[in-house]
Amino acid sequence: MRPNGRAVEQMRPITITRNYTAHAEGSVLVEFGDTKVLCNASVEDGVPRFLKGKGQGWITAEYGMLPRSTHSRMGREAARGKQSGRTQEIQRLIGRSLRAAVDLETLGEYTIVVDCDVIQADGGTRTAAITGACVALQDAIWWMMEQKKLKVSPLKQLIAAVSVGVVDGKVVCDLEYTEDSVAETDMNVVMCEDGNMIEVQGTAEGAPFSHEELLEMLAFAKEGISQINIAQREALAK
Amino acid sequence: MRPNGRAVEQMRPITITRNYTAHAEGSVLVEFGDTKVLCNASVEDGVPRFLKGKGQGWITAEYGMLPRSTHSRMGREAARGKQSGRTQEIQRLIGRSLRAAVDLETLGEYTIVVDCDVIQADGGTRTAAITGACVALQDAIWWMMEQKKLKVSPLKQLIAAVSVGVVDGKVVCDLEYTEDSVAETDMNVVMCEDGNMIEVQGTAEGAPFSHEELLEMLAFAKEGISQINIAQREALAK
Amino acid sequence: MRPNGRAVEQMRPITITRNYTAHAEGSVLVEFGDTKVLCNASVEDGVPRFLKGKGQGWITAEYGMLPRSTHSRMGREAARGKQSGRTQEIQRLIGRSLRAAVDLETLGEYTIVVDCDVIQADGGTRTAAITGACVALQDAIWWMMEQKKLKVSPLKQLIAAVSVGVVDGKVVCDLEYTEDSVAETDMNVVMCEDGNMIEVQGTAEGAPFSHEELLEMLAFAKEGISQINIAQREALAK
Amino acid sequence: MRPNGRAVEQMRPITITRNYTAHAEGSVLVEFGDTKVLCNASVEDGVPRFLKGKGQGWITAEYGMLPRSTHSRMGREAARGKQSGRTQEIQRLIGRSLRAAVDLETLGEYTIVVDCDVIQADGGTRTAAITGACVALQDAIWWMMEQKKLKVSPLKQLIAAVSVGVVDGKVVCDLEYTEDSVAETDMNVVMCEDGNMIEVQGTAEGAPFSHEELLEMLAFAKEGISQINIAQREALAK
Amino acid sequence: MRPNGRAVEQMRPITITRNYTAHAEGSVLVEFGDTKVLCNASVEDGVPRFLKGKGQGWITAEYGMLPRSTHSRMGREAARGKQSGRTQEIQRLIGRSLRAAVDLETLGEYTIVVDCDVIQADGGTRTAAITGACVALQDAIWWMMEQKKLKVSPLKQLIAAVSVGVVDGKVVCDLEYTEDSVAETDMNVVMCEDGNMIEVQGTAEGAPFSHEELLEMLAFAKEGISQINIAQREALAK
Amino acid sequence: MRPNGRAVEQMRPITITRNYTAHAEGSVLVEFGDTKVLCNASVEDGVPRFLKGKGQGWITAEYGMLPRSTHSRMGREAARGKQSGRTQEIQRLIGRSLRAAVDLETLGEYTIVVDCDVIQADGGTRTAAITGACVALQDAIWWMMEQKKLKVSPLKQLIAAVSVGVVDGKVVCDLEYTEDSVAETDMNVVMCEDGNMIEVQGTAEGAPFSHEELLEMLAFAKEGISQINIAQREALAK
Repeated sequence: MRPNGRAVEQMRPITITRNYTAHAEGSVLVEFGDTKVLCNASVEDGVPRFLKGKGQGWITAEYGMLPRSTHSRMGREAARGKQSGRTQEIQRLIGRSLRAAVDLETLGEYTIVVDCDVIQADGGTRTAAITGACVALQDAIWWMMEQKKLKVSPLKQLIAAVSVGVVDGKVVCDLEYTEDSVAETDMNVVMCEDGNMIEVQGTAEGAPFSHEELLEMLAFAKEGISQINIAQREALAK
Repeated sequence: MRPNGRAVEQMRPITITRNYTAHAEGSVLVEFGDTKVLCNASVEDGVPRFLKGKGQGWITAEYGMLPRSTHSRMGREAARGKQSGRTQEIQRLIGRSLRAAVDLETLGEYTIVVDCDVIQADGGTRTAAITGACVALQDAIWWMMEQKKLKVSPLKQLIAAVSVGVVDGKVVCDLEYTEDSVAETDMNVVMCEDGNMIEVQGTAEGAPFSHEELLEMLAFAKEGISQINIAQREALAK
Repeated sequence: MRPNGRAVEQMRPITITRNYTAHAEGSVLVEFGDTKVLCNASVEDGVPRFLKGKGQGWITAEYGMLPRSTHSRMGREAARGKQSGRTQEIQRLIGRSLRAAVDLETLGEYTIVVDCDVIQADGGTRTAAITGACVALQDAIWWMMEQKKLKVSPLKQLIAAVSVGVVDGKVVCDLEYTEDSVAETDMNVVMCEDGNMIEVQGTAEGAPFSHEELLEMLAFAKEGISQINIAQREALAK
Repeated sequence: MRPNGRAVEQMRPITITRNYTAHAEGSVLVEFGDTKVLCNASVEDGVPRFLKGKGQGWITAEYGMLPRSTHSRMGREAARGKQSGRTQEIQRLIGRSLRAAVDLETLGEYTIVVDCDVIQADGGTRTAAITGACVALQDAIWWMMEQKKLKVSPLKQLIAAVSVGVVDGKVVCDLEYTEDSVAETDMNVVMCEDGNMIEVQGTAEGAPFSHEELLEMLAFAKEGISQINIAQREALAK
Repeated sequence: MRPNGRAVEQMRPITITRNYTAHAEGSVLVEFGDTKVLCNASVEDGVPRFLKGKGQGWITAEYGMLPRSTHSRMGREAARGKQSGRTQEIQRLIGRSLRAAVDLETLGEYTIVVDCDVIQADGGTRTAAITGACVALQDAIWWMMEQKKLKVSPLKQLIAAVSVGVVDGKVVCDLEYTEDSVAETDMNVVMCEDGNMIEVQGTAEGAPFSHEELLEMLAFAKEGISQINIAQREALAK
Repeated sequence: MRPNGRAVEQMRPITITRNYTAHAEGSVLVEFGDTKVLCNASVEDGVPRFLKGKGQGWITAEYGMLPRSTHSRMGREAARGKQSGRTQEIQRLIGRSLRAAVDLETLGEYTIVVDCDVIQADGGTRTAAITGACVALQDAIWWMMEQKKLKVSPLKQLIAAVSVGVVDGKVVCDLEYTEDSVAETDMNVVMCEDGNMIEVQGTAEGAPFSHEELLEMLAFAKEGISQINIAQREALAK
């Protein structure tokens, strides 16, 4: 039995709230059950130095956890003076995923930075972040079109992400913290709406996983992401 | 005329929401108008090295702003690898203020860390943070008493803070961003419920301020803080 | 046509040289074509603080590139004062992979650090590093057994890794730099000898990849890794 | 009884020595009793990036303590790799205070950096620093006028600072170390010659302070600063 | 008796291998006995900021030790976030020595960076590094001439270096680790082929050294360096 | 002709002032002409970790320059967050030199830290620092004997240092800044009173130097240091 009686393939309730804060061009609070991530998209003129004069834009992401978003308090990265390897790995993943959703040449010489800050953590913060960041990105692009900075939307497709894994020998979808912390395998999948994949990152934390388990995890991920896409579409329709 | 037609001595609406997140022993969202600060109090066993074996506890605070809590995006301190002078100044102020509210010997060998993270900024983030942190601290102490970690509450008194200043030659209370950014003088006052002062920090950003202006600012601060104390009491009564 | 006329599923020549340097308990130079990585395993008494008293050992890895291992010189990380996100991501991957090969309780309270330093880079440095690190780890364990530090080998299985990807619409195995830099998809796979998986990390750098492409990449990876296992076994037999 | 039999409102002897070192455009050793601070003002062409093209100048300050300026040796900040929160707070205070003394538009596109280095500490280093820095600033401005870099002096007024506080229930002026370390309240006041205030920073280290105590501290500060102004004027007349 | 029966004035076997790696413009593995250092010279367009527009080039060096080049593992400087004082001292020495070998005006606005990375350490890594770096520099200059970046070689002379010292009261040449670690005096000498000196750095680790010992050390150094010059010439003739 | 008409072998006037500041166990201002360095020796209980339980003491040094000790302002190392290679090189030199003057076993488990801070720089700051630090060290040791921390002095001998060099083809002693900045060769020599050497560090900044020049520099150094020893002895006799 999973916590709260969830079926193995069942997602937690998904809530996507737009315009959560006042200043960002796109501001989305995304909730996967008790996991809550604030995704703020900021539009900035110009591009990083390595792209100057190449006639394209840039999308990047930063990720952070509030020190007490977790069960016991984590040290503040700003106070320790550096971001952990995990933080960097996650923000690189979010950035890469978002760039796969956007035509950077159509974007032109603008940079969109999406800050994903975890308010409350209960497993799956990176997949929730990618999911919310994509909605915030859409809002930021709509703002740019209103502001006449863009004529055509550079967003090629919505993307979303979910975690799947093997817990107690069973493949499950959308792991919460109590599952994640004991999973034999943990896999994060980022997909487009058409079911093609942008990222697949599977890690055996305990026993190695078999080809069959991999296929089952991917099937659960595909189904979960199609539900997340519905939530994204509904939020964007409001 | 002040923004939104406020009278010179008038505070913005104050909202104090307890139990805002799930994990912290005290978790408070405090709002002064559009300024929103999340204050999470964490109880930890033991004390910092310099206090070991002295039979007393410790209260400290950390402060941060989400990168897009502000009108234009600020660089993330964790990414830059250090906290700004302003951040350090503010978190030192919050920590000192909270320690003035607590009998550290009664607290015993525990540390309470209060994280004040600005979700949305519109002036007065440090005074809102002190105000909310004190409520989160009360919740954390109540939790400790429930857990039988404490028999007697070490909280001596509620504290609260407000900013006052001189804008366009007039003394005003609880400056919002558009006022703060043009103020001739900006002063932060931290007080106990009995009207005694814990901190007074006044700075002439433009013209120096006179003794009379100082007295008028203090009078406004006292009145504003008594209103904040009411909001704190009401929130704690729920 | 691939560079050097390789077939799509064909690995580059693999060379594994043991005892490459004099001081390390395991010292292996691994070559995948022109990619050369020196893997030195060091045995240290004790474990990191978070494992003290838990009756188990620890395996960790560090990764670096000599500044001129690459086509144009990269800044030295020691001089810049921090390791890049990419470096941290890779060394975390190597460490996790090696830990999956070892029974940490059988290892006992020792730490084995494997330093993987890239002498010359031509694509696939992280997969070569994992492959060579596992051989160096075996040598270090044999050294521990000779020294009577261990009675039983904690190595559960050999592990190895290979990169696969989609280049110009075709799935290929063991990408070299000229392929890697233009690949639509890049995937690193870490496997046990029995074909079960430890890590699968696939990233669409260009177009998203389909389920069919994923399956084909996994099949190539399995075949490539079985060849690498042969090279590992041969090197260890000398 | 205060140390050395000082009356509660009495300042320690003040000595201000100009041209203390050879290279700086303004170089002043200021002594408040046994507290000795070297204040060197350096004139530099140009302004920081955030002021470029705005037709104004900039004044900034840096503060440091020699490691053995204190009773027991403090770690060297350069060796620890960062300035403490206290150091940053003090140098921000000195910089703000000096900027309040100067018309930055009249200064034009120059930057004056005032380095305040504590040679020997016995309480009140920040107030001594502000006092000496203002004299060094005057010398630097006179040097600029001699060099024809300025036609008109941008110095609007002399500023000076003193600490006041509550020790053993009594309000006292110009606290030395043995007083400062046990004070219930510590307040630093920066004033112009006309008695208007630039900074008031009062902190209850022990018991909160009352409105009456605040007024008495301000009165002592005003009297102390008027004596410091005399010492500044005399030094500048030489 | 010295280790391996060496005579007091005798060098260890010297091996100099050019083109050791593929990408660098000059790539040399230098071996003094069991000490092995990889010296890669990289040619870069332009000069550091402080030299811009002065019509001259720049030569600089960086030095590092692989963590397990030593008997017991040393922490990785990139992971610790800073280069040790020893590392900085050595790379400054290498850079100064190489600059003494080159006419920087003839070099023109190019920078040559020589990375000296210790693969295996057994005493004398800095002198081996200087020796190998000079050969790598020659290769880089020849490459520049082939590329028509230079018409005339800016290399004025070969330089080489050796360590000498006092061990057990006897002056010896080219100390290996077991000697170096117990030497009373350790001296590094960098010379031109004509016997003139570029650097002399002698340190009494135990007893101070006399004028006579200094003269004997210099004589040994001169003789050792003339042998190294032969090895350099032979390597360059291939 | 040298500046101020000095003869080639002539030292600048040397002044050594003891008890320059109040708190340090040894506090010496040393002046070589216009170069002024404050040397404060601090006695601390215990030794660094790597010496614990070995029954010996430790002497170490730190070096810094006040930002405006130089002709134009240098950035503050504490603000830049790291000490330059030059600073580290100098403080390592001072520490090694002082350790050569002391019997560390006789010192016992104490650490003496000597802070050498340059108040005003005009060439030769490191040699002045070593000279003054030795006097401060003597004072600290006398203080320890008075405090009954030591029965026997561990100071084996006075040490002193001077710079010599080749300027315009002539060997000169005790270079000031205008000479140092154009010298072909710059050499720092640290000697005992008996003329034996602790450190010799000669660098060809321009042309390489010959054996004869080296001998002449050493002769000048010996003569200069004997004069400095007289000044040290006189200061210590007061």
